[in-house]
Amino acid sequence: MDDNTETAPELQISEWINADQPVTLKDLRGRIVVLHAFQMLCPGCVQHGIPQAKKIHGAFDRKDLVVLGLHTVFEHHSVMGPDALKVFMHEYRIPFPVGVDAAHVGSDIPLTMQAYGLRGTPSLIVIDRSGCIRLNHFGQVDDLFVGAVLGQLIAQPVGTMTGV
Amino acid sequence: MDDNTETAPELQISEWINADQPVTLKDLRGRIVVLHAFQMLCPGCVQHGIPQAKKIHGAFDRKDLVVLGLHTVFEHHSVMGPDALKVFMHEYRIPFPVGVDAAHVGSDIPLTMQAYGLRGTPSLIVIDRSGCIRLNHFGQVDDLFVGAVLGQLIAQPVGTMTGV
Amino acid sequence: MDDNTETAPELQISEWINADQPVTLKDLRGRIVVLHAFQMLCPGCVQHGIPQAKKIHGAFDRKDLVVLGLHTVFEHHSVMGPDALKVFMHEYRIPFPVGVDAAHVGSDIPLTMQAYGLRGTPSLIVIDRSGCIRLNHFGQVDDLFVGAVLGQLIAQPVGTMTGV
Amino acid sequence: MDDNTETAPELQISEWINADQPVTLKDLRGRIVVLHAFQMLCPGCVQHGIPQAKKIHGAFDRKDLVVLGLHTVFEHHSVMGPDALKVFMHEYRIPFPVGVDAAHVGSDIPLTMQAYGLRGTPSLIVIDRSGCIRLNHFGQVDDLFVGAVLGQLIAQPVGTMTGV
Repeated sequence: MDDNTETAPELQISEWINADQPVTLKDLRGRIVVLHAFQMLCPGCVQHGIPQAKKIHGAFDRKDLVVLGLHTVFEHHSVMGPDALKVFMHEYRIPFPVGVDAAHVGSDIPLTMQAYGLRGTPSLIVIDRSGCIRLNHFGQVDDLFVGAVLGQLIAQPVGTMTGV
Repeated sequence: MDDNTETAPELQISEWINADQPVTLKDLRGRIVVLHAFQMLCPGCVQHGIPQAKKIHGAFDRKDLVVLGLHTVFEHHSVMGPDALKVFMHEYRIPFPVGVDAAHVGSDIPLTMQAYGLRGTPSLIVIDRSGCIRLNHFGQVDDLFVGAVLGQLIAQPVGTMTGV
Repeated sequence: MDDNTETAPELQISEWINADQPVTLKDLRGRIVVLHAFQMLCPGCVQHGIPQAKKIHGAFDRKDLVVLGLHTVFEHHSVMGPDALKVFMHEYRIPFPVGVDAAHVGSDIPLTMQAYGLRGTPSLIVIDRSGCIRLNHFGQVDDLFVGAVLGQLIAQPVGTMTGV
Repeated sequence: MDDNTETAPELQISEWINADQPVTLKDLRGRIVVLHAFQMLCPGCVQHGIPQAKKIHGAFDRKDLVVLGLHTVFEHHSVMGPDALKVFMHEYRIPFPVGVDAAHVGSDIPLTMQAYGLRGTPSLIVIDRSGCIRLNHFGQVDDLFVGAVLGQLIAQPVGTMTGV
């Protein structure tokens, strides 16, 4: 878990799936947010990232913690559009909201991916109750470690966030 | 393994990927053919069928046995076209030829899928050296069982195919 | 995690393995203690409990958290004595201290197992920094859940233990 | 599969478990014999070898193929005697006969282990219908490969054993 925290940039999303209305980090302040950044045709995401994100979604009280997917397409854009993503989410039974990372005109890398400095997919980002990034991990992470990070953040009330 | 065998219908393919020229069962007569029928957005295919097909491809001598993929899209056709399939095959490093099952105008079920009476994906079809279907299985199959079926067929020279 | 906590009974151990001197919960006060109760010939312990206990041992700072094994033999006593246990620990490369639960004359159930009311093996017991039992689970537990419990307890300083 | 076959030496067993009477290779001539050599406190045996042997036992017709366990204790003899083995077999629900490899006075290596030149545990030995060794493998073997070896041997009638 990172102690040199920085405020999480707001999500820049062109379309939400599995959400009644747009989701913002600002509205989720006071809760822990787990962001799972993935691409639907990325094997590591399908084998490890997505199952882990679904498990986190099922394990914690939504009042404490919210899981969001972030579809950060940075390659093969033409075959991973929103229509394909919707089929993927249906087939893989993804129960949490997923936002399509907004394209950056003139770049393959979408805007939120750039703002968080993500190196690829899958990436797991954990934001604490006060809106600070506490984990930004590229690749596979062990469930025990993720659980320990989330448990620590859950135990901390909003006002005591400094110096964890 | 099925003892009441029937001759395998010829494949009806609109496009081959990973193949220099069209592949026909007729040309493969004398060798065992393992057909892995899948859809690129089918979770059971991605988790079990594809890895098993890759393992079979790596385990046997190509002079005895050939693995072919068959992309039998019967739902969500618009997002599982050949362009998306090529990206999928690149990302999942599929080394064997894959044929796109030819569409049947006026039906969601493509032609080869119909001819083999497939019930869904993943399906594993095993064709012996004389061109007869010896296994046509829908769903997951254990590696030990598949190995035993293939081992028996490999041990049989072409002329002795009756009454296995 | 259990909110109706009770003070953990002191361990009753006839012999320690992998420890320079006897280990007591009293001496570990201020740290979280994870007790893994097992039998060396219990398949569930070998497949799930022991690997999980080793993973916990490797994941946390010993200043925060200590893992202890508890060999609670309640059946087949003659073939699971300390000599057999030492070979088992060597073969399975168990790096943390393991205490042999002290026999209760006239009973198959050893003393610590009785004091903690364990129903069988594997059992996972988590004791917080103030010496209270926060988890007492029989059977397999998911890594994510265990991590979350331990993370919450690590985040709590000793003086604030009430009412988690 | 080995083409330079040699006749399998007869088993030298001090005690059979899960068998009504002593088992001999001679009596099993005409059937394929799968010998799983293991030690009850060997982690690789418990994790891979035993589950694979149980799966083979469940997958084939006993008229074609028989699975036998061989308890080849070559270290820590005092804690892996027949009484401990019986508990192990009960706990791990081993359904096939297991023979205790007979001790060689003055050596740690038991007699059958010596006769087969085994390098350690787990080892998988496959004997064909005519009593020849066709596989003698130390370590983990993939199910697909084992299935293919067994399938080939099953397809061969006794009289045609040469030159597989």
